[in-house]
Amino acid sequence: MDIRIHIKKPTLLLDKNKCTRNIENMIDRAKRCNLSLRPHFKTHQSAEVGEWFRELGVNKIAVSSLQMAQYFADNNWKNITVAMPVNLREMDLIDELAGRIELNILVESAESIHHLEAELNNKVNVFIKIDTGYHRTGISAEDTDGIQNLLNYIKASTRLQFKGFLAHSGHNYQANDPDEIHKNHKKTVLDLNELKDVFRSQFPDLEVSLGDTPACSISDEFFGIDEIRPGNFVFYDMMQFVLGSCEEDEIAVAMACPIIAKHANRNEIVIYGGGVHFSKEYLEADEEGTKLFGSLVNIKPDGWSPIMSGGFLSNLSQEHGIIKCNEDFFNEFQVGDLIGILPIHSCMTANLMGSYLTLEAETIEMM
Amino acid sequence: MDIRIHIKKPTLLLDKNKCTRNIENMIDRAKRCNLSLRPHFKTHQSAEVGEWFRELGVNKIAVSSLQMAQYFADNNWKNITVAMPVNLREMDLIDELAGRIELNILVESAESIHHLEAELNNKVNVFIKIDTGYHRTGISAEDTDGIQNLLNYIKASTRLQFKGFLAHSGHNYQANDPDEIHKNHKKTVLDLNELKDVFRSQFPDLEVSLGDTPACSISDEFFGIDEIRPGNFVFYDMMQFVLGSCEEDEIAVAMACPIIAKHANRNEIVIYGGGVHFSKEYLEADEEGTKLFGSLVNIKPDGWSPIMSGGFLSNLSQEHGIIKCNEDFFNEFQVGDLIGILPIHSCMTANLMGSYLTLEAETIEMM
Repeated sequence: MDIRIHIKKPTLLLDKNKCTRNIENMIDRAKRCNLSLRPHFKTHQSAEVGEWFRELGVNKIAVSSLQMAQYFADNNWKNITVAMPVNLREMDLIDELAGRIELNILVESAESIHHLEAELNNKVNVFIKIDTGYHRTGISAEDTDGIQNLLNYIKASTRLQFKGFLAHSGHNYQANDPDEIHKNHKKTVLDLNELKDVFRSQFPDLEVSLGDTPACSISDEFFGIDEIRPGNFVFYDMMQFVLGSCEEDEIAVAMACPIIAKHANRNEIVIYGGGVHFSKEYLEADEEGTKLFGSLVNIKPDGWSPIMSGGFLSNLSQEHGIIKCNEDFFNEFQVGDLIGILPIHSCMTANLMGSYLTLEAETIEMM
Repeated sequence: MDIRIHIKKPTLLLDKNKCTRNIENMIDRAKRCNLSLRPHFKTHQSAEVGEWFRELGVNKIAVSSLQMAQYFADNNWKNITVAMPVNLREMDLIDELAGRIELNILVESAESIHHLEAELNNKVNVFIKIDTGYHRTGISAEDTDGIQNLLNYIKASTRLQFKGFLAHSGHNYQANDPDEIHKNHKKTVLDLNELKDVFRSQFPDLEVSLGDTPACSISDEFFGIDEIRPGNFVFYDMMQFVLGSCEEDEIAVAMACPIIAKHANRNEIVIYGGGVHFSKEYLEADEEGTKLFGSLVNIKPDGWSPIMSGGFLSNLSQEHGIIKCNEDFFNEFQVGDLIGILPIHSCMTANLMGSYLTLEAETIEMM
């Protein structure tokens, strides 16, 4: 079989072997570090990929929206954390889900707690979102008074069951190297342990949940942490490769794009594949700020090659991509050929593409 | 009626009155300048919005993929230009569409012409893509030998019918001000007229098609041009407003997003609405390169306010957005409230959202 004959337009290829190996590796790390694994499913958003996790023993997940929780609940997942501060405008959906699965939601304000208590009919588990240095959402780990205040409201409520503290070290995605990830991670683990110590007498069963692919991919130091929630590791991508979170051959997805034009006077190859396929995320390839929208691989009958030198995806408009390359590279490809691109951010690319094609030519749908 | 009660999660509001006025204005300009209007439907991607054009007399369109051509052909559009260099891997679909509608495709290489001639059963119209300075696709307008070469192949073919020259001045989207747009546009019109003069004796009926929202929005100088293909004008967006292509009150779409957290210590409001809703396009708001991911408006029962001062959308992650604001702005909004955001690039935002909600609470689906 030659997978290439099935590819007519920009197509997101999924290497099931690499993907399954990534899942197994994360399960191994969780076991080794005595952690419960709650993978974040926002990266793949697919019931079928979810089954690959389930077959390896995973039985609880995180998602990033209530719609995603609903989709996976409909696909028989019984324990789901919606890892976003709760959206009070979706109270009906929260209530419906809380009535049929073990639903965990995130709170970080008194208003949210009051609304939930007043408007829910079913009981729901809550985590308090803790800010460990990313400064996007959550209460600072040092603000124990603020946390105690929320805990008092939760204790007094009849609908909310306190589960523990949840953090996301999003700043690890902006780290310069693995050392910086390790350093951030150590501080996060320390802060969360201190927090646990303060509140453990009141809540002996409180759990601490932490989740980011960089730290979960390279660290074995999770003392005091109960659960990890990485998501991106299922596919990885160029951002994680550059960060040092994965090896190149662990990247489990590649876009296959048809070549639609060539311009010899400027050594540029135009692909059918743009911002509506990849998203427009980029890495800076050098100190002059040259933008890298993806690295190039050769699409083969049964998969893709290692990254090819001599060219890179240098620009994206809505439907077109521009490959800048040297003359040898330029001459290797013809209009109508396919070229492969390892995406910068696989979560965003998968979200845009809406389905996968496995190397066995099976189409896998997403929500 | 209060539209806000229908909004539970990030929702793309569409003001039908503004949108219809934008369509009417472009139709008026086309008439005034003696141009045929072939609107690009990649911005809205909706059969229903298409009907608003049809009711005002539009009967031919441009699209950016063969799938989009198929969708609009299924919705009774009989004359469609696929404004991308032809993708040779979709020959079956080209042939199928060419058999049932007036299909116009773009060529810029001899290989493409040979493949089309060899593999198509039905006749198809072709435009030669001309590069007028954007340097993304097309043959340089000055390369009349190269163009003559392609024309000879087209003349010799039995399947391809030459229609004319097609250009897209994409560099107008990167202009610094309306003067630069006017200057680029004048040069483009001049170059295309020269080209027309060279080839008119061979092809007396050749058409010249030009299309970009900035020039089509502000220029009345289209001497010698036969057809315009703007797309974004149907909604406009912050990028066009900053370019000077539209007024603020011509922007016909706004995202309505729930507020999910507030952080008083840094005057930040967190919204449910991120890269998977907006795309991650941004404008640089000042000389220090501060990124602007959207401007803020107040969502009212029947629409939205002018842009509010005091805050802006400063960052996007996958599902979250961060609003930086002053204290007055901060105190005006509560968790659970809605806030409106005028998108940077409406084409990308609409593509991600997949549907619209009109101010009359009607849901409009996309392809």
